[in-house]
Amino acid sequence: MPFRESTSEEINQVMEASKQAFEEYCKTTPEKRASFLDAIANEMEALGDQLILTASQETNLPATRLLSERGRTTGQLRTFAMMLREGSWVEASIDTAEPSRQPLPKPDLRKMLFPLGPVLVFGASNFPFAYSTAGGDTASALAAGCTVVVKAHQAHAETSEMVSGAIKKAAKSLSLPEGVFLHVHGASPETGKALVQHPATTAVGFTGSFTGGRALYDYAHERKVPIPVFSEMGSVNPVVFLPHTLEENLDQLVQHFSGSVTTGMGQFCTKPGLMFMLQGESADRFEKLLSASVKEVKAAKMLHPGIFKSFVQNAGKVFGALGEESSILTSEEDLPAPSIATVSGKRFLENKTLHEEVFGPFSLIIKCKDIQELKEAWLAVSGQLTTSIIATDEDLRQNRDLISAAMRIAGRVVFNGVPTGVEVCASMVHGGPYPATTDSRYTAVGVNAVKRWVRPVCFQNCPHDLLPDELKNSNPLGILRQVNNEWTRQPLN
Amino acid sequence: MPFRESTSEEINQVMEASKQAFEEYCKTTPEKRASFLDAIANEMEALGDQLILTASQETNLPATRLLSERGRTTGQLRTFAMMLREGSWVEASIDTAEPSRQPLPKPDLRKMLFPLGPVLVFGASNFPFAYSTAGGDTASALAAGCTVVVKAHQAHAETSEMVSGAIKKAAKSLSLPEGVFLHVHGASPETGKALVQHPATTAVGFTGSFTGGRALYDYAHERKVPIPVFSEMGSVNPVVFLPHTLEENLDQLVQHFSGSVTTGMGQFCTKPGLMFMLQGESADRFEKLLSASVKEVKAAKMLHPGIFKSFVQNAGKVFGALGEESSILTSEEDLPAPSIATVSGKRFLENKTLHEEVFGPFSLIIKCKDIQELKEAWLAVSGQLTTSIIATDEDLRQNRDLISAAMRIAGRVVFNGVPTGVEVCASMVHGGPYPATTDSRYTAVGVNAVKRWVRPVCFQNCPHDLLPDELKNSNPLGILRQVNNEWTRQPLN
Repeated sequence: MPFRESTSEEINQVMEASKQAFEEYCKTTPEKRASFLDAIANEMEALGDQLILTASQETNLPATRLLSERGRTTGQLRTFAMMLREGSWVEASIDTAEPSRQPLPKPDLRKMLFPLGPVLVFGASNFPFAYSTAGGDTASALAAGCTVVVKAHQAHAETSEMVSGAIKKAAKSLSLPEGVFLHVHGASPETGKALVQHPATTAVGFTGSFTGGRALYDYAHERKVPIPVFSEMGSVNPVVFLPHTLEENLDQLVQHFSGSVTTGMGQFCTKPGLMFMLQGESADRFEKLLSASVKEVKAAKMLHPGIFKSFVQNAGKVFGALGEESSILTSEEDLPAPSIATVSGKRFLENKTLHEEVFGPFSLIIKCKDIQELKEAWLAVSGQLTTSIIATDEDLRQNRDLISAAMRIAGRVVFNGVPTGVEVCASMVHGGPYPATTDSRYTAVGVNAVKRWVRPVCFQNCPHDLLPDELKNSNPLGILRQVNNEWTRQPLN
Repeated sequence: MPFRESTSEEINQVMEASKQAFEEYCKTTPEKRASFLDAIANEMEALGDQLILTASQETNLPATRLLSERGRTTGQLRTFAMMLREGSWVEASIDTAEPSRQPLPKPDLRKMLFPLGPVLVFGASNFPFAYSTAGGDTASALAAGCTVVVKAHQAHAETSEMVSGAIKKAAKSLSLPEGVFLHVHGASPETGKALVQHPATTAVGFTGSFTGGRALYDYAHERKVPIPVFSEMGSVNPVVFLPHTLEENLDQLVQHFSGSVTTGMGQFCTKPGLMFMLQGESADRFEKLLSASVKEVKAAKMLHPGIFKSFVQNAGKVFGALGEESSILTSEEDLPAPSIATVSGKRFLENKTLHEEVFGPFSLIIKCKDIQELKEAWLAVSGQLTTSIIATDEDLRQNRDLISAAMRIAGRVVFNGVPTGVEVCASMVHGGPYPATTDSRYTAVGVNAVKRWVRPVCFQNCPHDLLPDELKNSNPLGILRQVNNEWTRQPLN
């Protein structure tokens, strides 16, 4: 096992090296960075079955899932490469001079986005590829022109080492400085704190628990120079079922939501954790069928013993609050039993414990006495990555306020579908109001994730040949720019 | 005088009213919001000379300056109205469904930016119009669809009341809810804290001192639900003079920088506070002429007694650190004496006191022994709104690293010009690394200032007729959108 807690000297060395490499890496062309991302994808694929095997051993995730997750990860890397080659993401803007303007001449002003500096990325236990070493945070930060330091997740340290090796090989093949990507280990809060509070660190990306994400956010705030932290801290992903749909599509809904609750043993930040519906016959049938369906799902080991322990504790807390005894373990003592619990809208509103995330194959049905109570209970939950509305078009037309309410609590509003399955594309928002994330203005998935690691810089009256290509009159990169308030790819005359 | 410290009940009432009004205001059309901003501009103009007179009495600023500042403020309001009518600022993006994709169908995903909620704006003492009641923060937040609560600056409470009246009149004329804009008074830290920490507050805009801006940032962090704070906290705006230019354009440079240091009694966050040059004859002549030139400027009363007191203290600290006795007061005891001080690069590097902002008509010349020391001293200062480089094109070509270094410390890099004078346009960046602001990823001036108050929301498989106009296939607003990764204004078929 490569895992070993990093010493403070190591942390210092790594962050200083990252800072030094940034001086060189931030000047690379978009094409060079695109080639780097493509090369990382290729090297990850070149690790072949051995990578899948290692990850499966470390995380208990099945090979099929890991193969598809690697595909998503290399796909993400190549999507950022495409974004770089297209080039318009830098938000270039040009306002030309008016030397004869009265009472004062107008200067020539040109702005675009530039990288912040070394970005610190924390590997996530539940996505050993897609949100870890070469995952979305790393890919977007490298695309931005930032250097990256990854703290491997201790639960898949060996997998992280292998992916780190692939990134380093890719960097070497393109003669990039070694410090462009560095890799450290550690599991203690002190290591996380030392990394976040190192003066060279300029931004942080994290996916994981509320406790972990909030701690990093606080460490960053304590710094002499505070830095942005994008912590994605999970979600209960409330789902609202309106009565017509529940009646008409009961079997299909049971099937979809049973899958969504139990896939990957419910170890997704988009797992539907709360399901709101009106009390009555349909709700009772849904509850019964869903409960039976999830019980049939073959249990599998969870990601690591800590996650399993938390699941038992947190699901236990909910059943405890309901005054119910329920087995959340299968007959084999180290496996979780996929379960559904039920509560009235009234009790849900009274007990905040029931609003909290249970990470694992568990969901809570809330049966409300009327639509008013349903809305109240639904909106009582705090900031979310997603919320879903299961309703006929007609129901929605009659309850338009449901949509604006949904937008108020979540980053993504799903209609007649499950929240699991996060498409990687420009329109994806994987983010949301606190405590889903520490900054609702950004997404962690899709090309816009790059915006977390950049800031605009404006050049005033810069000699033309010293401007970056993105801001030159001839527009040599052919990017979309805002020129004197018009969006255009045309060069300036 | 309308000034009176707000009680906690008043604060609570105001924030709750703002929250309630948001429910209605966030649903207004872009055209409605544009009309509102135009109406505010018209009402501000309708206040005529009386507004200028009141502001002049409260701030000691001359009528000419205030007239031009009002012009800038109404110009800003109308610019945001134009932005709303053009509409592309919402970053609309559409990825259409692929129901037959294998192994999983691709859903229809559409995203755009939506307002955060009630925004709290703190009036700034040095810009009673442009950064206060109907200033850039208010205009951008109202444009975003946020409701606004302004805490008037106590130094121009009457002016703020008048402008607040104009905004309320504009809201009424368009039948907008009263709570769309609310106005409170207060000078105590407790009032600021209560406003920032009220649960209904969703974001904060502030322009002023480091102490004030940092306090608000900390209050926001202490909340159960932390919120974004954009504090713009000033800057020393370092200027680097390379030798050729200094020699060749000495007289002109003296004239420009004398003006830039003393205009408005140096009460601008973009006033050049540090000037780095190589020691030698040119530097000596520049120092002598600049010193003489600023001494000739007619002193005027500063904005308020607190600012004057700080100026005397802070300029005094610098002279004290230099071991020099210097009069920073004119013969009239309540007027500042515009002054220049000088120090060697070595001493500057040794003494951090010399790096700090002196708000007022004062600047420090740093004479360095060589280009190496100059770079070191220049880059020793922390995050800045601007930095300027005075150099021939040839000098710049030979010192390209100066430009990348400049980008590292500032939000705007000025070539051969003074940093004062902030153009309002899309390419402007009025922001920069901490401590210039608390979030370097945003600008406080120009249309992009709107991005501070919004977050993206994604709709997955939303029934088409329930989508906002910005995301409908027909593109009824004709805005620029990213459709399946292509930028276009075309409708979808």
